[in-house]
Amino acid sequence: MTNDVFGVTLRNKVKRGNKRAAYDKETVYGILDSHFLCHVAFEVDGAPHIIPTSHWRDGNKLYWHGSSKSFMIKHLSAGNAAAVSVTLLDGLVLARSAFNTSVNYRSVICYGTPELVTDDAVFDQQMERFFEMLAPGRWPQLRTMTATERKATGLLEMEIDTAAAKVRAAPPGDGDEADHPVWAGVVPLETVSRAKVDAPEGAQAPLNHDVFTAYNWKTI
Amino acid sequence: MTNDVFGVTLRNKVKRGNKRAAYDKETVYGILDSHFLCHVAFEVDGAPHIIPTSHWRDGNKLYWHGSSKSFMIKHLSAGNAAAVSVTLLDGLVLARSAFNTSVNYRSVICYGTPELVTDDAVFDQQMERFFEMLAPGRWPQLRTMTATERKATGLLEMEIDTAAAKVRAAPPGDGDEADHPVWAGVVPLETVSRAKVDAPEGAQAPLNHDVFTAYNWKTI
Repeated sequence: MTNDVFGVTLRNKVKRGNKRAAYDKETVYGILDSHFLCHVAFEVDGAPHIIPTSHWRDGNKLYWHGSSKSFMIKHLSAGNAAAVSVTLLDGLVLARSAFNTSVNYRSVICYGTPELVTDDAVFDQQMERFFEMLAPGRWPQLRTMTATERKATGLLEMEIDTAAAKVRAAPPGDGDEADHPVWAGVVPLETVSRAKVDAPEGAQAPLNHDVFTAYNWKTI
Repeated sequence: MTNDVFGVTLRNKVKRGNKRAAYDKETVYGILDSHFLCHVAFEVDGAPHIIPTSHWRDGNKLYWHGSSKSFMIKHLSAGNAAAVSVTLLDGLVLARSAFNTSVNYRSVICYGTPELVTDDAVFDQQMERFFEMLAPGRWPQLRTMTATERKATGLLEMEIDTAAAKVRAAPPGDGDEADHPVWAGVVPLETVSRAKVDAPEGAQAPLNHDVFTAYNWKTI
């Protein structure tokens, strides 16, 4: 189905390492949903800017938020384009040569023009959605958002105009040089969570919900 | 010493959350040296682009490489500016309200205009330096780089014109609402490495050097 693949344009076409490229929505969405850390690039007076922030996805829309007075939120609410990247590093690939040394990773780059969410219902629904990714069941336990807090929060919504994923998940590519006397293989990398640390004022209730379920991060 | 702090300009000034900002080189360099994953933003015909890649640092210069034919390497060799971000996520900060929910992190944004390294001695020295970060002692064990491989590798060097770090490393900021009956605290996040996986052709030698020493990632 054409619908299930992002169109390939000059903008999102992966030129180098194109065997690692994927444009299907299942792959792109899967990577976007595997972490909450993204980097947002935008342009101001011809100069590149970049900011790390937290994102989440609903259908073909990406969301992120910040102070409504932040430069990024104001700039991107004004019709300026953004490029958003989510990258997961899965391992270091140690080959027999420097040239073949690589990393295993899953990355996505999305292009679009964000808009400020002004509908209160969408705002609530999306904030809850973000919490459901981070910590399912926590949203209703929180102290309710005040009108002032709501006003101070700028939520951006970006329809993903086009996107490209790039994935490497393989051993070293230089098996033909396997007689070179150096260890070769992959050192896997992973994000894990550690035991929770109670707030210094003391926790008023146990942590009675999961954390990071959506991301499958193990607690060690 | 003035030398040890990046000048604050309109470009790198942290406007929101400026209590978390740092401009001293020790902090900026420390964060740049804590991971090899960075995101590079640049502008093409007024549109923002972003690419994840691997970086390292030498003094006040950032380095990253790619195929010499890649669009990014060619574009950034031609005098175009870049903004480079390195972000380490240290934990999810679960506060009593959505508004105070946050993350602990260390991030740096660097601005500059990269140049292509054309000096073979600098090329060798910097490639070895990168390997010393990733896997100290491995460089001399590798099959030597060929002339073709060298030609196919584009190494960029970017003098850091200015930079800003932003760090949050604290419990939830809403201790004044500690009577709200929800668990509050921090869930720490960490990058770890897993047991190495030998190449399918078989390892010709044991892994007789460290990996990730510079980054202090534990193996679990």
